[in-house]
Amino acid sequence: MSKAITAKRRPNLFESRIFPIEKIELDGVEESFLRGGRHLFKLLPRAMSGIEQIGVIGWGSQGPAQAQNLRESLEGTGIRVAVGLRAGSESFAEARAAGFSEADGTLGEMFDVIRGSNLAILLISDGAQAQLYKTIFEALRPGATLGLSHGFLLAYLETVGERFPPNVNVIAVCPKGMGPSVRRLYEQGRKVNGAGINTSFAVEQDRDGRATDIALAWSVALGAPYTFKTTLKSEVVSDLFGERAILLGAVHGIVEALYHRYLEEGARPEDAFNRACESLTGPIRQTISRHGLIGIDEHLDAEGRRDFRRAYDSTYGAFKGLMAEIYDEVVSGNEVKSVVMAADRFREFPMTKVDGSPMWKAGAEVRRRRGQIKTDIDGFTAGTFCGAMMAQVDTLVEHGHPYSEIANESIIEAVDSLLPYMHARGVAYMVDNCSTTARLGSRKWGPRFQSMLEQVAFPTLASRESTPDQPPERFLTHPVHEVLHRLSEMRPVIDIAVT
Amino acid sequence: MSKAITAKRRPNLFESRIFPIEKIELDGVEESFLRGGRHLFKLLPRAMSGIEQIGVIGWGSQGPAQAQNLRESLEGTGIRVAVGLRAGSESFAEARAAGFSEADGTLGEMFDVIRGSNLAILLISDGAQAQLYKTIFEALRPGATLGLSHGFLLAYLETVGERFPPNVNVIAVCPKGMGPSVRRLYEQGRKVNGAGINTSFAVEQDRDGRATDIALAWSVALGAPYTFKTTLKSEVVSDLFGERAILLGAVHGIVEALYHRYLEEGARPEDAFNRACESLTGPIRQTISRHGLIGIDEHLDAEGRRDFRRAYDSTYGAFKGLMAEIYDEVVSGNEVKSVVMAADRFREFPMTKVDGSPMWKAGAEVRRRRGQIKTDIDGFTAGTFCGAMMAQVDTLVEHGHPYSEIANESIIEAVDSLLPYMHARGVAYMVDNCSTTARLGSRKWGPRFQSMLEQVAFPTLASRESTPDQPPERFLTHPVHEVLHRLSEMRPVIDIAVT
Repeated sequence: MSKAITAKRRPNLFESRIFPIEKIELDGVEESFLRGGRHLFKLLPRAMSGIEQIGVIGWGSQGPAQAQNLRESLEGTGIRVAVGLRAGSESFAEARAAGFSEADGTLGEMFDVIRGSNLAILLISDGAQAQLYKTIFEALRPGATLGLSHGFLLAYLETVGERFPPNVNVIAVCPKGMGPSVRRLYEQGRKVNGAGINTSFAVEQDRDGRATDIALAWSVALGAPYTFKTTLKSEVVSDLFGERAILLGAVHGIVEALYHRYLEEGARPEDAFNRACESLTGPIRQTISRHGLIGIDEHLDAEGRRDFRRAYDSTYGAFKGLMAEIYDEVVSGNEVKSVVMAADRFREFPMTKVDGSPMWKAGAEVRRRRGQIKTDIDGFTAGTFCGAMMAQVDTLVEHGHPYSEIANESIIEAVDSLLPYMHARGVAYMVDNCSTTARLGSRKWGPRFQSMLEQVAFPTLASRESTPDQPPERFLTHPVHEVLHRLSEMRPVIDIAVT
Repeated sequence: MSKAITAKRRPNLFESRIFPIEKIELDGVEESFLRGGRHLFKLLPRAMSGIEQIGVIGWGSQGPAQAQNLRESLEGTGIRVAVGLRAGSESFAEARAAGFSEADGTLGEMFDVIRGSNLAILLISDGAQAQLYKTIFEALRPGATLGLSHGFLLAYLETVGERFPPNVNVIAVCPKGMGPSVRRLYEQGRKVNGAGINTSFAVEQDRDGRATDIALAWSVALGAPYTFKTTLKSEVVSDLFGERAILLGAVHGIVEALYHRYLEEGARPEDAFNRACESLTGPIRQTISRHGLIGIDEHLDAEGRRDFRRAYDSTYGAFKGLMAEIYDEVVSGNEVKSVVMAADRFREFPMTKVDGSPMWKAGAEVRRRRGQIKTDIDGFTAGTFCGAMMAQVDTLVEHGHPYSEIANESIIEAVDSLLPYMHARGVAYMVDNCSTTARLGSRKWGPRFQSMLEQVAFPTLASRESTPDQPPERFLTHPVHEVLHRLSEMRPVIDIAVT
């Protein structure tokens, strides 16, 4: 299937009657974007005119972040932000602790909140969306706007041959980071204007011509440094694919395999962890965040470059086929069906643990001793990680995704939103702060990446002596470096402060 | 999905006008079966009357075995066994070396052979069946019998909303072992009457009332010690499920995880391999083959029983949910779609290696030194393996499969057909002698089982001190032990001689 849908990227443009839209050229293809920041909050009432209540439905990964950011950004505008939860949900207490309350009408049963909202933002789990969509569609006011943060529901409706109701707008604003980072960077944005998580938006149905401006307003209110355009279909495919691959699944598999490898080479557990994981979530991540993938090269000596190249070549080759498999599984609808079936099994078989293996004990010890141990950019670890990232980038390029989406779903989300969580408390703190769909995908595909390194990539490594001491030409000259450079100029330099 | 299809097993009966059918009660449910053996070969001409040519299409795992066994069993009857291959196939040379030839009409282009056959046995890969089924159906003679060795084609037709052509019989005879073992044990059957691989048969379409007898004749001619009944749907589900789980995927994941565990406990590589893999494919396998799962208990001392129990409990619990997931993926059609998509990617991404990890180097060394090193039944390894087998058995029981199918797909095929190959030359020699579908499934799910042990089962082990020194009651009293005992009485005791 992969080979058949190889597509050409096309200009990715949009206009707004309210917000100042700019253009950028990414690898020769023009894209529109909106630069965010708090100075735009004054435009929100006009963009959202007619909206009296925004209902934020669900309190999982995105719910708490979006509800609080929207409330704060819209303060004083008269637009009410209300949280809607399943009757009897244990999350009522958390929502109340965050200042939402039944008394002032900002907290209630989900269908009541949907019926009372002009913009209903659906942030319940994908599995619950699949179970409840009919009742949700019935509860929507005619003329209201249905907001999604992810194209999953579209993909699910396709598998069952259903459609969105025709009498509403359907839009999506999709933060390129997990909920806790959407909240955390927004808070940091009070001091550094424009700090936040980048988003993409999509307009699936526009019955009154206002869908684009409502979506842009929602994105600005979430604190997005910049907003670019996609379609629901492109979003759900790149999102499900990306989190199964480098964002969560692949990076987990990579550190487990590297840890085993370094142990087998004779390293002690803490040293193996320091090289396999601490180096990746620490200096490698920071260097990519500040200087792009190409920045890694500048921080390596000749030996480090040889290690980088050996790991890069073998990883890229081994992962490219696995990425093609995951892409096919997502596009075909298999992955959507898997998530829905897993949700049906949760009562009998709850989500399993992801950080039980011995390396995470060594990890806790390394984190405890931070400051006493030196953590450099490990050339082999960096080569494995970059090889995986580039395999993902090329897979998305071959399928015609816009570069704004590719760079965010493959690199920026990893280094600026997710890996800081793994750095702070280990893999489970990253994976299990994400959506149920992402958590399931990471558990499903992570072991495949680990095995692909252990069974295929590492055993085929050429001898060190015959490896050139520079990264491969196709890495050094890849257009993604210029894309990352341009995108990085569109937002403030800020490191997320994970608590 | 799992919980919804929990079904009750029902009597599983059939009759024959030619062969002597017996009955057996397995866990309180009656099943018919045909005991095989060379003394029945004289009944083959009557059961196959009207059949002038049997076309065996394909030369993969099953093709060479079935073509040669059929030819030998039907020698002197006048029924011709002809092999049909894709035009230009590299397998023509192998088929000629096995004595089939264009000159005497026993070797030819596949569609020619199908057009010339009254019974066309379709043994090309599942992916090729999905690609070619329309042309194949057109080539079948009206009134002919289409033979399958696996229900995959039915499952595929369901996913695309198609059916078998109405003017032919459709039957299946499904050996519960890979092709090379079907051939090898048949050869051993020249000296030990009844040696062979058990089969199930299914009648999907019976337009002339003769389908059952043709299927039974085919099974007897393959050398099946006994033949039991199933449906194409039950077969494809249990077959795809079983090979993804304990038959190939799970057992691969188990030995990789055990090897890591024993290394981390301080064992040297060869000792770790000896405990993790050699013990399993050697004495554990032999004991189960001769004395059933319960036989393991008799060979353990108190410490071994404690180890067995710790491993059994944690493995069973961790694997039950993963088995439910695999069962859902198979029943939903996802797994069938995955196989078809993988076949479409082969040109760009060929099948990967499964035995590259360091343990298989240690394995080669252990095999080289056989006779000099002692290999006992390792209690922990045995507990892990038996816990996995029982998780699979219970999953199939809960979904209403007949016990004949359950025992064969979960235990007998593993110990009597597959594991001897892993014992002889390592995991790839077992996995890659199986069908493409099985090889893909093993690569897909094996790493999940490995990870489930490393991340979930092993970290939750209770301390040894608090573990009772006997296997769990639910293992000791499980009905599968009596089922295995009864089934073992239905065939000669013979160990496959893998060369």
